[in-house]
Amino acid sequence: MKMSSSSNSTCAACKFLHPKGTQECVFASYFPPDQPAKFASVHKVFGASNVAKIFNELSTSRREDTVHTLAYEADVRLGDLVYGCVGIISSLLQEIELAQTKAEIALLGAAQLVDPFIYNEQK
Amino acid sequence: MKMSSSSNSTCAACKFLHPKGTQECVFASYFPPDQPAKFASVHKVFGASNVAKIFNELSTSRREDTVHTLAYEADVRLGDLVYGCVGIISSLLQEIELAQTKAEIALLGAAQLVDPFIYNEQK
Repeated sequence: MKMSSSSNSTCAACKFLHPKGTQECVFASYFPPDQPAKFASVHKVFGASNVAKIFNELSTSRREDTVHTLAYEADVRLGDLVYGCVGIISSLLQEIELAQTKAEIALLGAAQLVDPFIYNEQK
Repeated sequence: MKMSSSSNSTCAACKFLHPKGTQECVFASYFPPDQPAKFASVHKVFGASNVAKIFNELSTSRREDTVHTLAYEADVRLGDLVYGCVGIISSLLQEIELAQTKAEIALLGAAQLVDPFIYNEQK
């Protein structure tokens, strides 16, 4: 299988899955031959056949973004087998909660400075 | 394949993959038979064989959390084929940036109220 571009290099997916194949590869434009680790991660976590099924449900213009997010998600999962991206989401939610609490505390402090009498009355 | 618990119900993974199988199923404790959609989503996005490989790298005590996060990640990906969990991470990062900007603006406003003379001098 050759890259769909003018290059004669087999893509990273073909090198990995079927190095002697000859038909056009659906992954050729998205997994360049010089990035074999990118395909290996995606294949290890999602499986090439599942990615091909996702591709089939998308227009070609949306496949590049999809490959980027799948590659990111796969790398995160391989780095954290238990939580993957859900671990990042959980951390960010905690960060938001912390930022909101800090802002509230700062604003309460500022309100007390502006008018301690009113502030204490309202309390 | 039967559930490893005392129940005689085949698990959701077995019902889906090999309803006539007889050996012990690695997924039995994590995909109860009354939640077939949970396994179907995980299988569609990650593939049962990839999940089994992840399981093999983890102690049994960490597999339940892993199934929860894989099921969440799979559902999010099926709802947003292009961005999946990366879309959520991106939104949360924007939310953090917005919260920090809002807090800074509020604190600047409060500082100006506390002492407009000092504030304007410093500007």
